[in-house]
Amino acid sequence: MKEISKLIDYRADIKVVDATLRDGGLVNDFYFPDGFAKALYEANVRAGVDYMEFGYKAAKDMFDESKFGPSKFSNDDYIRSIVGDNNTDLKIAVMADVGRTNFKTDILPKSESPVDLIRVATYLHQIPGAIEMIEDAHNKGYETSCNIMAISTAQDGDVKAALDIIGKSPVDVIYIVDSYGSIYPEQMQRIAKLYCEYGHKYGKKIGIHAHNNQQLAFANTIEACGDGVDYLDATYAEMGRGAGNCAMELLLGFLKNPKYNIYPALDFIEKYMRPLRDSGTKWGYDIQYLLTGLFNQHPRTAIAFTKDGRKDYTEYFKEITAQE
Amino acid sequence: MKEISKLIDYRADIKVVDATLRDGGLVNDFYFPDGFAKALYEANVRAGVDYMEFGYKAAKDMFDESKFGPSKFSNDDYIRSIVGDNNTDLKIAVMADVGRTNFKTDILPKSESPVDLIRVATYLHQIPGAIEMIEDAHNKGYETSCNIMAISTAQDGDVKAALDIIGKSPVDVIYIVDSYGSIYPEQMQRIAKLYCEYGHKYGKKIGIHAHNNQQLAFANTIEACGDGVDYLDATYAEMGRGAGNCAMELLLGFLKNPKYNIYPALDFIEKYMRPLRDSGTKWGYDIQYLLTGLFNQHPRTAIAFTKDGRKDYTEYFKEITAQE
Repeated sequence: MKEISKLIDYRADIKVVDATLRDGGLVNDFYFPDGFAKALYEANVRAGVDYMEFGYKAAKDMFDESKFGPSKFSNDDYIRSIVGDNNTDLKIAVMADVGRTNFKTDILPKSESPVDLIRVATYLHQIPGAIEMIEDAHNKGYETSCNIMAISTAQDGDVKAALDIIGKSPVDVIYIVDSYGSIYPEQMQRIAKLYCEYGHKYGKKIGIHAHNNQQLAFANTIEACGDGVDYLDATYAEMGRGAGNCAMELLLGFLKNPKYNIYPALDFIEKYMRPLRDSGTKWGYDIQYLLTGLFNQHPRTAIAFTKDGRKDYTEYFKEITAQE
Repeated sequence: MKEISKLIDYRADIKVVDATLRDGGLVNDFYFPDGFAKALYEANVRAGVDYMEFGYKAAKDMFDESKFGPSKFSNDDYIRSIVGDNNTDLKIAVMADVGRTNFKTDILPKSESPVDLIRVATYLHQIPGAIEMIEDAHNKGYETSCNIMAISTAQDGDVKAALDIIGKSPVDVIYIVDSYGSIYPEQMQRIAKLYCEYGHKYGKKIGIHAHNNQQLAFANTIEACGDGVDYLDATYAEMGRGAGNCAMELLLGFLKNPKYNIYPALDFIEKYMRPLRDSGTKWGYDIQYLLTGLFNQHPRTAIAFTKDGRKDYTEYFKEITAQE
């Protein structure tokens, strides 16, 4: 049972990471309304958020720049157009996928970039590729994190082997990622204990990135927080792929550090997130996402179900549980 | 940390209680579409649900029968029109509020009623009234539960005193009720431990009734389940007052007892709950409910905010946090 003091006092080493432009961008191909990114940046500064993730560093020879909004590529010039010299306490993050980022050319030395943190997203079978990217970013002067995806379908032994390899790298933060929204808080507690053991052994911070398929993104995030995880991802109005993520407004309400302030989050939601939802942009918990979470599957079939405007949950259930 | 076996195996003494007609009825004055209650009954039987709550036993000299649907009063004849002789394993429950039920006249002997369980809802200052109703129902041959509301605003000492009094009564089940959706899982674990201690001392089962103001109704329900709480309330599509309750479909997906089956729940949601929502009936998590949950307030102002179609979260925040 966690110490009750944790509910009244706070851990000063908690960091809140806004992933709205990056995970939310997966919902709308990164096409956000004019002024959205700037208002989000200002909301994050006022709310006391620690990091703002601007998007992906997608390889331009793989993805057509004319087919996505700017957060798909997160060019330094684009980020500067929002943050200027970023004379604030808010740090800037971008995500780089292993095998989908030309990191050697597209990630400049930190001295020439507004970015502070490079988040390397990897599957278990790509760990050596992740290490190469982490070392490159570290040597260029960036903070780095390693986000190991889809661990809910992995063997414990493989996860431990990966944590050992990543632990020996110069990475600063290792992320627990519940890609499929399939993990229950009881399981999250065990996973957090494992990651924190490796974090302690190798001197790394641990982070959590949750999805809301079973309405557990916030619950899993505060569970992990109580277990010693420091980097907490959230998105405004839980905007994110499929069922979305941990809601920033829930997390800011929960955290007791006076540096965090829910009011600017409510203001941003009122002015930008609510209209975005009302305009027909779709994300968030629904039955189809519950089912892919429950069955520990990638949400792609649920996203298609949503896109097609389907409501035949029983047919969908039979489709995704078909054995043949 | 809970035993991992609990996530694979199951406790046979878990009971799932469907509260859709009762808590959901607070959203629509108990006016459900034709066929809804019958289809819900059949879904519960097929899903392996243990109890179905048909509604309140409201005092007819306080509430006008012409202004509410039948689940406000839950007359035995109405229940019989749905369940017949109820030759199933599904038990029938009704809720009786202290001070708002003519229990002596409106609750007939069990031998003359299709009802199995009388759920007595009480505030801490009404405990003697609750005891009188529990004894009356018990003597008439019913199973009984005592649902102590609004404990999140009560002193520990008062809750313990109430548990001692209720423990000495003939009640079968004592409920943890998170009326305001303000309780975090870490707190729920402590509350469950306390209630289970009294339950063990007096030979009572413990139940949990959660609200979803902070997207924690399911998380708190499975937390309590892991802590030894046996009676788990849920509603289809989380339909309930304000932010709603723990979603039946999430709970059935989580429970491992093969008697439970999520498919009939999906079928009912597809045919009845989704159309009900699409018809404009409003319930479920939203920012205004997050705020009353966060500030541990009754949701009545949030319900009014919703009813008025307001979206000015920042003004609402200032209204409910005004100090003067």
